[in-house]
Amino acid sequence: MIVGAIAACTAEGAPMSEKYGLFGKLVAAPGKRDELLGYLSEGTEAMPGCLLYVLSTSEAEPDAIFIYEVWETRQHHADSLKLPAVQASIAKARPIIAGFGPERFEMTPVGGVGI
Amino acid sequence: MIVGAIAACTAEGAPMSEKYGLFGKLVAAPGKRDELLGYLSEGTEAMPGCLLYVLSTSEAEPDAIFIYEVWETRQHHADSLKLPAVQASIAKARPIIAGFGPERFEMTPVGGVGI
Repeated sequence: MIVGAIAACTAEGAPMSEKYGLFGKLVAAPGKRDELLGYLSEGTEAMPGCLLYVLSTSEAEPDAIFIYEVWETRQHHADSLKLPAVQASIAKARPIIAGFGPERFEMTPVGGVGI
Repeated sequence: MIVGAIAACTAEGAPMSEKYGLFGKLVAAPGKRDELLGYLSEGTEAMPGCLLYVLSTSEAEPDAIFIYEVWETRQHHADSLKLPAVQASIAKARPIIAGFGPERFEMTPVGGVGI
């Protein structure tokens, strides 16, 4: 169990962490959720700076896919979107994405278990 | 980089995963966010079945703390709330929690990077 210490604090007490966290929701076209899950997991093996990229389904929303990501920095995340393998999976995924959730949170991960 | 395969599928194609995911938001009393972060990270070293427990802050919401959790099963999560160390940290945290976000998502993590 890797326990991450709470990041040191700035003078104003705000946790000093460069990590970049993102939580959002994709809605698959009807009946396409598992196919979309497959595409979303392609090309994720070698994403520099990616600490977490977790795909989840929801019993409450059968067509939804929730994605939770933690990156070393915001820039690592931005750079990942230019990776050929990621672009290829996005191209496959796009036609069966019906929409994006209003739920979208950008965060600064500062500690806990597993990062 | 640990790449988790997308869970095998049930007959109906739904990913067969027992993992339990939770994303939610706490709002700290004004000026108490970092103190609350400290309490929330106490007692998290030995929580059986805890794969991820990530605390994050938000530039958009200075008093908010977002918590993302992944557990081996829902039961592991429920059992963790009975652990003496967790109950002690909840007791310390409760007086400086101003509220809970409407944002609360229960999910089934099925794959990705880091779990």
